Amino acid sequence: MPPANPAVDAAEVAALLDRGRTLSTPVLRAAVDRLAKPMDTVAAYHFGWIDALGRPADGDGGKAVRPALALLSAEVAGAPPETGVPGAVAVELVHNFSLLHDDLMDGDEQRRHRDTVWKVHGPAQAILVGDALFALANELLLELGTVEAGRATRRLTVATRKLIDGQAQDISYEHRERVTVEECLEMEGNKTGALLACSASIGAVLGGADDRTADALEAYGHHLGLAFQAVDDLLGIWGDPESTGKQTWSDLRQRKKSLPVVAALAAGGPASEQLGELLTADAKSQDFDSFSEEEFATRAALIEEAGGRDWTAEEARRQHTVAVGALDRVDMPARVRDQLTALADFVVVRKR
Amino acid sequence: MPPANPAVDAAEVAALLDRGRTLSTPVLRAAVDRLAKPMDTVAAYHFGWIDALGRPADGDGGKAVRPALALLSAEVAGAPPETGVPGAVAVELVHNFSLLHDDLMDGDEQRRHRDTVWKVHGPAQAILVGDALFALANELLLELGTVEAGRATRRLTVATRKLIDGQAQDISYEHRERVTVEECLEMEGNKTGALLACSASIGAVLGGADDRTADALEAYGHHLGLAFQAVDDLLGIWGDPESTGKQTWSDLRQRKKSLPVVAALAAGGPASEQLGELLTADAKSQDFDSFSEEEFATRAALIEEAGGRDWTAEEARRQHTVAVGALDRVDMPARVRDQLTALADFVVVRKR
Repeated sequence: MPPANPAVDAAEVAALLDRGRTLSTPVLRAAVDRLAKPMDTVAAYHFGWIDALGRPADGDGGKAVRPALALLSAEVAGAPPETGVPGAVAVELVHNFSLLHDDLMDGDEQRRHRDTVWKVHGPAQAILVGDALFALANELLLELGTVEAGRATRRLTVATRKLIDGQAQDISYEHRERVTVEECLEMEGNKTGALLACSASIGAVLGGADDRTADALEAYGHHLGLAFQAVDDLLGIWGDPESTGKQTWSDLRQRKKSLPVVAALAAGGPASEQLGELLTADAKSQDFDSFSEEEFATRAALIEEAGGRDWTAEEARRQHTVAVGALDRVDMPARVRDQLTALADFVVVRKR
Repeated sequence: MPPANPAVDAAEVAALLDRGRTLSTPVLRAAVDRLAKPMDTVAAYHFGWIDALGRPADGDGGKAVRPALALLSAEVAGAPPETGVPGAVAVELVHNFSLLHDDLMDGDEQRRHRDTVWKVHGPAQAILVGDALFALANELLLELGTVEAGRATRRLTVATRKLIDGQAQDISYEHRERVTVEECLEMEGNKTGALLACSASIGAVLGGADDRTADALEAYGHHLGLAFQAVDDLLGIWGDPESTGKQTWSDLRQRKKSLPVVAALAAGGPASEQLGELLTADAKSQDFDSFSEEEFATRAALIEEAGGRDWTAEEARRQHTVAVGALDRVDMPARVRDQLTALADFVVVRKR
């Protein structure tokens, strides 16, 4: 893992994430309650608030980096964190719209240790509830009825289109033997960067910030998203299953062309070539699903030997640096700047 | 068919539909061109601009009632018809987003005599391109950057949520033996009424009309949508295949619980009861797919005998009357009022 900044104050980051969750969850739940039956129940299942039988559950709502960013973003504009709440909720709704549709398109049966919505409630409900969450996101912002809300919705819409572009790229890359590092970064910028960029700016926009400020915050969020994804790609191969909750070599088992893989393949040299031959054979192999731990360990070792692991860790640090640097373009209270920096640090040192 | 108003000027209606198509299609095509590959191609196929092999095609873009309404709606507010164009295109994008997703959810393999997108390009592209068209609709409106555009987007978002609610109801009704007339009307109001309501008001909103005017135009469009759907339900059973391009007894073959059917079942009396018994048996029948023309003719005759056909024709007239009546609540040029009335007349006397 890249020890980006050893000075991360874990308690402060935990408090920021907690504040985001605490302020946005009631508004998110009230929004989901607006959905007609049975979509409200399907959405509540997806968010982990009830189980497949409809019994109340205490779901793992994820790390909640996006709501935390949206609230801090409002404070950049000198507004109270509460001003960012509709933005935080709208971003979460769009994020979950994309999860519902992506899980169906990708055929993924599990998310956060639970069966995915299409698996439990069928493909039609996954499509329908995804659509409804997307619409709800716009509704929630636009019913504020302000000029700022219109600007925020426009930025969210642009981010959503990038999200969709990224998923289209992800799908098309699956059918290709080789993906360049640039293509992989572009896809990750769309799939992860765009919505983090929006999270980091939407609160400021709702708080009346000008476009220059919003653009700088978007740059921070975009590069933070790329750093986040680089770390995710490292954890997807070398993460500790105890921490991540995923299988060992998780991304390798899914034949994901993640950053360490494409960087290793692009590096050249004996390990890179050997890896390329193995992965080409794997793509045609009938036995892939019964591969042993050692076979994945061999591939992971080749990726590391070819430099894919180091390159990705370095990339996380590079993106982290650019992200934090973008904050210099904005005038903001020192405390808010420190907190945005702490969140960026957290993203690159996290273990899950 | 309900001879709602014998004074429909066919040439004038054709000119209005043509104007809507002519002004909105180039903007729609430019919007679709913004989509990343391969979504642009998939969308162009859906709109009928290219065939499944990518060759240019001269697709049937449908009746284009919605764009015609959006342009007239701008004129209600005293704006030129061009003011309504972004609204017309946004509504068409949302309409086609819903077609892409609904065809997949319903497993429909044909639309306008062509294979549906999910059939040609796979389910993932149908989901993805649908999502992209929905996002594009909001983008197109919001990049106008005006307060009016924000209000228009908000109304479009509310209509989209109703569209989604209507599809959710439609799906849930499929699994039920009985659906009440009220439930059927509510579903049709959501699936057809909401977007026609938005079409009829969005141009006015973009042209600066106040909420009272927009609400009255929405009422006109909503009831027009219900009249439109009642006529559609009549054509779905008794339409001339030569005109509709559909099979004989089309809706009966699909076991659709359309208005004539639910009205006939609700009517009571010997024909109603006999129909109910037949449809209950049909739902369990293994031979349904090999039913003869006569078996469907028997069911159609029972629906008619029980009063379902007359009731639906009467309902189309009632909704038409309410729609046209709503125009009285708005001050507008006499020519525009006549044209909105002519469009309403056209909707109820059409044969396809």
